[in-house]
Amino acid sequence: MSPESPEFTTVPVSLGERSYDILIGPGLIARAGEEIARRLKGARAAIVTDENVAGHYLDALMESLKSAGIAATPVIVAPGEKSKGFATLEIVTNAVLAARLERGDAVIALGGGVIGDLAGFVAGIVRRGMNFIQMPTSLLAQVDSSVGGKTGINTAYGKNLVGVFHQPQLVLADTDALDTLSPREFRAGYAEVAKYGLIDQPEFFAWLEANWKQVFAGGSERIDAIAISCRAKAAVVARDERENGDRALLNLGHTFGHALETATGYDSSRLVHGEAVSIGMALAHRFSAHMNLASPDDAARVEAHLKAVGLPVSISGIPGSLPPAEKLMDYIAQDKKVARGALTFILTQGIGQAFIAKDVPFSAVLGFLQGK
Amino acid sequence: MSPESPEFTTVPVSLGERSYDILIGPGLIARAGEEIARRLKGARAAIVTDENVAGHYLDALMESLKSAGIAATPVIVAPGEKSKGFATLEIVTNAVLAARLERGDAVIALGGGVIGDLAGFVAGIVRRGMNFIQMPTSLLAQVDSSVGGKTGINTAYGKNLVGVFHQPQLVLADTDALDTLSPREFRAGYAEVAKYGLIDQPEFFAWLEANWKQVFAGGSERIDAIAISCRAKAAVVARDERENGDRALLNLGHTFGHALETATGYDSSRLVHGEAVSIGMALAHRFSAHMNLASPDDAARVEAHLKAVGLPVSISGIPGSLPPAEKLMDYIAQDKKVARGALTFILTQGIGQAFIAKDVPFSAVLGFLQGK
Ligand SMILES: NC(=O)c1ccc[n+]([C@@H]2O[C@H](COP(=O)([O-])OP(=O)(O)OC[C@H]3O[C@@H](n4cnc5c(N)ncnc54)[C@H](O)[C@@H]3O)[C@@H](O)[C@H]2O)c1
Ligand SMILES: NC(=O)c1ccc[n+]([C@@H]2O[C@H](COP(=O)([O-])OP(=O)(O)OC[C@H]3O[C@@H](n4cnc5c(N)ncnc54)[C@H](O)[C@@H]3O)[C@@H](O)[C@H]2O)c1
Ligand SMILES: [Zn+2]
Ligand SMILES: [Zn+2]
Repeated sequence: MSPESPEFTTVPVSLGERSYDILIGPGLIARAGEEIARRLKGARAAIVTDENVAGHYLDALMESLKSAGIAATPVIVAPGEKSKGFATLEIVTNAVLAARLERGDAVIALGGGVIGDLAGFVAGIVRRGMNFIQMPTSLLAQVDSSVGGKTGINTAYGKNLVGVFHQPQLVLADTDALDTLSPREFRAGYAEVAKYGLIDQPEFFAWLEANWKQVFAGGSERIDAIAISCRAKAAVVARDERENGDRALLNLGHTFGHALETATGYDSSRLVHGEAVSIGMALAHRFSAHMNLASPDDAARVEAHLKAVGLPVSISGIPGSLPPAEKLMDYIAQDKKVARGALTFILTQGIGQAFIAKDVPFSAVLGFLQGK
Repeated sequence: MSPESPEFTTVPVSLGERSYDILIGPGLIARAGEEIARRLKGARAAIVTDENVAGHYLDALMESLKSAGIAATPVIVAPGEKSKGFATLEIVTNAVLAARLERGDAVIALGGGVIGDLAGFVAGIVRRGMNFIQMPTSLLAQVDSSVGGKTGINTAYGKNLVGVFHQPQLVLADTDALDTLSPREFRAGYAEVAKYGLIDQPEFFAWLEANWKQVFAGGSERIDAIAISCRAKAAVVARDERENGDRALLNLGHTFGHALETATGYDSSRLVHGEAVSIGMALAHRFSAHMNLASPDDAARVEAHLKAVGLPVSISGIPGSLPPAEKLMDYIAQDKKVARGALTFILTQGIGQAFIAKDVPFSAVLGFLQGK
């Protein structure tokens, strides 16, 4: 961990004066104080985390910040999606104000995507914008939610409908932290890793097919997979920071996936986000084949890989009863704007050849789902 | 009100791609539909307003939007500063989502500064940023709060500590609407008008000394005074959108003012913001004279004018008992960062010659207040 021989990989996110680095590697929690102090001189901090993550890593982070001279106040919330709501937003906001932090001080998110989205939103609104550090501890957060500046909470009207774009000053992805993540959560995050291959990197997908066991086991393949994922997301974000255009490609598998999450009432015992995305990606590939846009062989290959790592690939794989195709279409229509009976969907011409398909007929999607 | 002969004045706010116009004049509520439809084609809207303002102007605005083909949902909150908090933020946010508005639709703030700050914050966070239209109906909102993109709410830790910068697409200041404003609220807003003269426009201050009665009565002098104020604020905002530098000049009178608002517990029956600013400006000029920075004659002139329009100019003018000077200094210290016993203050070298004074000794301010 000496500064001379950092074992970590740096992925830059290029956003003009809002540019920042993602550091990926082992031991970064212990190194956090040094990395933060170097970038935000004299800053104090609030650490937002959840009970699970606090149990594993809060002491180590407090220690590291203390050695670097950073006074920090921990703010611990309950784990789970319920903490991404107005009630917890107000509590965390008040805790940051109670610590008398100023704009130049930092909110540190130590946890999964729930913590990153919540803490980032708080950092975006306290004093109209404070410094923000992401320390993602779930695989999903390391490869997806901690990069790009989208923050927010859920409401009764849907997920992530309220928030701000607020870029962090630094992302520290400690890959050792993933060792305490449950296998199910690791797999769920892996669905998003595979997604980057399926969007536009067929070689990366092929590499994952060959190396996924090492990625799950840890070591340099894991770091590589996370770095490639972050690079892919960073490139999209740099092109389209506020999601007006091709950032939509990142939604591969997500239209079907969100409908399934709604259909299961966001009950994580039945389905977590990455699992929904896995099924959604399998469906998007099968639907693309069904529409004669891609070969059925590609759909089969995608399914085979997701299955191999233990992810679900079909609606029937979800425990409990599910609504009929018509109802799923209602959820899809709620999620997306339906213009004159047509939908915008991320479809594909093959592995690593995803594209934004406008005007996908509603009836074609319904027919496909009815055929399942 | 025909488009050929607009009776209104246009003040542009130059912020690159976030630039917008402020239209100032009579009849703009009736004209709102047309002006909004022209700028935001196909948009729908939510109108956020308070009970007082709704009683006077909501029907007229709904009518105008309807004629222009803009479907609008009203969201009415209680009048007063209490509506600028998390509870109402959540209610209004949910109402906007319930209306199924998208990013390209608009939140319209119809009301005073409370409504503008609240609705602007909602517009800034729903779907991470929707279109926003300011329709300020108080003098304070027309000359100050509706311009510049600062939005937010209060918390137990202080006023305006939580919010976002979110610029409107258009500001429509209907000067007729001021006719139903209470004389006390009009006077309070006038304190901010006078402030622009005192900051850096001595001729404007002199013009106000000569023409204030016409400004209060309405007509072209009122429009002129509002336009000059908006131009002044727009220029400062264009130089310093995110308040990192000389936007601080706009705080003339506000350091003392905020301390007095805190001391009176934000009880508007005792003191409203503009009155606090009036006393604060008088104190800032007297303190500048006390520090031999400006002539006592200038302080006397400022006081005489504020008194003439009916504004309070001294702490003793506030009804009820007030804490001693030492306690007021505590409030000032809470509001401002106190670095090594020194404060940053807006002081002056004379009428229209305000400047940012760093390192004002705490003890000098205390001594001055004790001498009151
Ligand atoms: N902002 C974005 O761009 C973006 C992108 C994708 C997803 N998201 C959001 O991310 C959230 C999902 O993220 P998530 O899957 O990380 O959920 P999460 O934060 O709920 O974490 C999942 C579970 O793992 C636990 N955990 C996290 N790290 C751990 C560790 N190292 N050891 C042991 N336990 C650990 C958590 O306590 C939690 O119980 C969703 O709310 C989603 O909307 C946001
Ligand atoms: N965002 C900024 O840059 C900024 C700048 C200055 C002040 N502010 C904020 O503005 C707020 C004060 O604004 P305000 O003085 O307009 O307060 P306000 O919105 O409470 O309005 C004052 C009163 O006048 C009533 N009212 C408004 N227009 C009326 C009309 N045309 N006819 C009859 N009644 C009318 C309101 O119902 C209210 O009772 C404070 O919260 C302050 O923090 C913000
Ligand atoms: Zn996802
Ligand atoms: Zn003011």
